[in-house]
Amino acid sequence: MSRTILGLDPGTATTGFGVISEDSGQIKLVDCGYIATQAGEELADRLLVVARSLEKIVRRYRPDMVAVEKLFFAKNRTTAIAVAQARGVILTVVAKHHLPLREYTPLQVKQSLTGYGRADKRQMQRMVKALLKLDQAPRPDDAADALAIAICAAGATPRVLQ
Amino acid sequence: MSRTILGLDPGTATTGFGVISEDSGQIKLVDCGYIATQAGEELADRLLVVARSLEKIVRRYRPDMVAVEKLFFAKNRTTAIAVAQARGVILTVVAKHHLPLREYTPLQVKQSLTGYGRADKRQMQRMVKALLKLDQAPRPDDAADALAIAICAAGATPRVLQ
Repeated sequence: MSRTILGLDPGTATTGFGVISEDSGQIKLVDCGYIATQAGEELADRLLVVARSLEKIVRRYRPDMVAVEKLFFAKNRTTAIAVAQARGVILTVVAKHHLPLREYTPLQVKQSLTGYGRADKRQMQRMVKALLKLDQAPRPDDAADALAIAICAAGATPRVLQ
Repeated sequence: MSRTILGLDPGTATTGFGVISEDSGQIKLVDCGYIATQAGEELADRLLVVARSLEKIVRRYRPDMVAVEKLFFAKNRTTAIAVAQARGVILTVVAKHHLPLREYTPLQVKQSLTGYGRADKRQMQRMVKALLKLDQAPRPDDAADALAIAICAAGATPRVLQ
């Protein structure tokens, strides 16, 4: 039976999303992209854009599972706070729709996709491209990151490429 | 003309709220309390409780303004992240209802109420009690903190007591 998995990479400025389907270990790209908010807008209004856009994505793809990166303590605290605020909004939408949630650390996502916890951004993007059999790496980075989280949640990673 | 001001002290475990009315510099307590979430529940479900409870408070009191503490970088990062997540949820509800939002640092709240930026919790609670002419300090602390933020936003502080 096919499952639809939505991966999310939260942020106030941009929240990446990646939708994949998984069936007996086979994964396919369904859609990916990002929710962008205006830098000049009030934070509250930007977070509302994140909430409403995510609602649309959830209604369109009706995911069986949502995967989000676990919050880690970033070097940049301002970024951590911004991510945490957006993440709070995202988790609320997930709970509202009674969607099962999986959370992974960046290390877990990297290990799942490449078998290597210190893989860099380029290596991760190459793996996302290879695993989803795409002609090119998904753009922008936030969408690729969100797809990586969804692939990790699918738990169906062959780990053959490096 | 009387204005209703809602002060909020965000947190995942408890979010304090304080509602006051202000008319020509005179402030009055309308209600205060806190939104509590269950420690054993999933974070997403707890944040949804915060969102829904706040929706009820907003619909009941129809505030003309909402005041929230600005995020400062707490010594405890885990707390900062928890507050940021709840704060993201709160700001989304505020934006959804098109409510004007004011943000104040803890220093601004303390200075506004006591004229003294280093006032401690007890001094703040005494000021909240005195300014709202209450028989006793509001309980719990989260509710008192939320009232202090609302009073700061009312901008009608005599600063006579210490």
